[in-house]
Amino acid sequence: MPMSIEQNTSRLRDVTEKTIAEILKTEKVLFDEQFRYALLNGGKRLRPIVTMLCCEIAGGKSSDARYAAAAMEMLHTFTLVHDDIMDNANTRRGLATLHKKWDVGTAILSGDEILALAYRALLKTKSKKNVRLVEIFTKAFFDVCEGQAYDKDFETRTTVTSKEYLKMIELKTSALFSSSAQLGGLIANVSEKKLNALAAFGKNIGIAFQIQDDYLDCFGDEKTFGKKIGGDIAEGKRTFFLVRALEKSPRSVLLKKVAQRKISASMIPEGIKLFEEMGLKKEAEHLVEKYTQTAITALNVFPQSSSKETLIRFILQLVGRKS
Amino acid sequence: MPMSIEQNTSRLRDVTEKTIAEILKTEKVLFDEQFRYALLNGGKRLRPIVTMLCCEIAGGKSSDARYAAAAMEMLHTFTLVHDDIMDNANTRRGLATLHKKWDVGTAILSGDEILALAYRALLKTKSKKNVRLVEIFTKAFFDVCEGQAYDKDFETRTTVTSKEYLKMIELKTSALFSSSAQLGGLIANVSEKKLNALAAFGKNIGIAFQIQDDYLDCFGDEKTFGKKIGGDIAEGKRTFFLVRALEKSPRSVLLKKVAQRKISASMIPEGIKLFEEMGLKKEAEHLVEKYTQTAITALNVFPQSSSKETLIRFILQLVGRKS
Repeated sequence: MPMSIEQNTSRLRDVTEKTIAEILKTEKVLFDEQFRYALLNGGKRLRPIVTMLCCEIAGGKSSDARYAAAAMEMLHTFTLVHDDIMDNANTRRGLATLHKKWDVGTAILSGDEILALAYRALLKTKSKKNVRLVEIFTKAFFDVCEGQAYDKDFETRTTVTSKEYLKMIELKTSALFSSSAQLGGLIANVSEKKLNALAAFGKNIGIAFQIQDDYLDCFGDEKTFGKKIGGDIAEGKRTFFLVRALEKSPRSVLLKKVAQRKISASMIPEGIKLFEEMGLKKEAEHLVEKYTQTAITALNVFPQSSSKETLIRFILQLVGRKS
Repeated sequence: MPMSIEQNTSRLRDVTEKTIAEILKTEKVLFDEQFRYALLNGGKRLRPIVTMLCCEIAGGKSSDARYAAAAMEMLHTFTLVHDDIMDNANTRRGLATLHKKWDVGTAILSGDEILALAYRALLKTKSKKNVRLVEIFTKAFFDVCEGQAYDKDFETRTTVTSKEYLKMIELKTSALFSSSAQLGGLIANVSEKKLNALAAFGKNIGIAFQIQDDYLDCFGDEKTFGKKIGGDIAEGKRTFFLVRALEKSPRSVLLKKVAQRKISASMIPEGIKLFEEMGLKKEAEHLVEKYTQTAITALNVFPQSSSKETLIRFILQLVGRKS
């Protein structure tokens, strides 16, 4: 009997946990406690699961991709640790952020060294294409920093177009998904054509995932979402909704106040209501659907397989978690 | 007529400046101003000069090593930008540190992205051994973080042995010199034996350089040193001198106060005098000489050449700048 999608993804999540634990055991680091705290306290392991499933759909063995998968998760963790400092965030996955539990210096350095470990993990991969692996990984590292720079820049700008917003999430979110998918394919030794298909798959699923994340902040269920609804509005964050709303109604007093972080608690439900009235809820749903379908279509170059079915159902779950 | 050592090193410094400027021009980044500020405002370019000279002594062309050389300088800059935040430093090379001129978030992110650019620069190198280049570069990145972790850890500890101090500077300072030397050799396609010799050269010169740096803080000439004498003492920094002095006289009231940063201005000359009375000035001079000689001896596997002569005279200048 074939494994269910839950069994399949939980198997790969397990491989990720074990591989990261193995890396931490092999590499002796002074900040061992901090590394375990950042790397082994939950996390959905989406990116490593994408890497390993993409390796499988391309005919490879997921175990051959496990170090690259762990490297992607560690690259992701590095960005979270540093972004949390920049955003002055207090909690992450229900725990104090690393810089709150320790201090900013320790968090900067832990982030840096987790990235060094990520490169070392990646280099453990047995593949003739290791230089390409490093190139793709480094491109993701570069893009994710550039995306964060844009996100930071948006905070102080009065106007941000939806085109700029899309560019930002392509860098900040899609880059990691795209390179996660490509690494898996490369390890399975795919052709350039298939590699490009995996890049497109990752890019589109990343955009869908980010818009969905913005969506859940307004229209999700607090219980399953795990965060307070309207948190992005409270922070004046340039999400899909705020950017599009300001584009459509640049003179709205409420929207201006949100963008300038001059809001009171009652404005959060007002803002959400306004987004819905402006048709942005529907627009977001449509975009998530569109990017998800484009992502799935990109996989057409791969033959049908149970891994492909798992991957498609996995990402549908990912963007469909509206509860 | 052969070039003088000054002409030779200034030529390589020039190549470094141009290569970094070229990289910044090619890669479009949002924080262009910050990157130029961090990367193109002086700096002695010691590490890239070592990379290119080591490439030459191994029979290669220095121009083939220019991207790797620039990558080493950028890795070094990344560590300076992040370390300055951790140390709450106000100035660097006579200018405000990046996090003081902008803000901590911008400095964290700029450091991160400069490192991403460093990897991208390294990957531009035309060599069949690119995977080894990345491995050696990543080892240096990992070690320098680990060294900084130890240095940070020392701040809060009551006792630090001189063995621990040596281990720390091997990681924090020698790692970059060692990998700078190795990258140059690898690009010139040296044997494993010669690669090991270059690693030993870099390691020993790094230790000599760091002890000399500690030495200048106490016994240098303010005019040529470029920093205020006794700055390390004022900060209670675990230098060679403080570590050795506390090892020899753990009960000294003055030393304890220095270590706990409970000092007044008058204690700085007292501290320096004490170090000298304890014989540590001589001990440091002896160690710098010893490690420098070991470094030079490691180069015996390379034939005599004008590049080798330049390299030896360059490092002698480096550790001999007592003025």
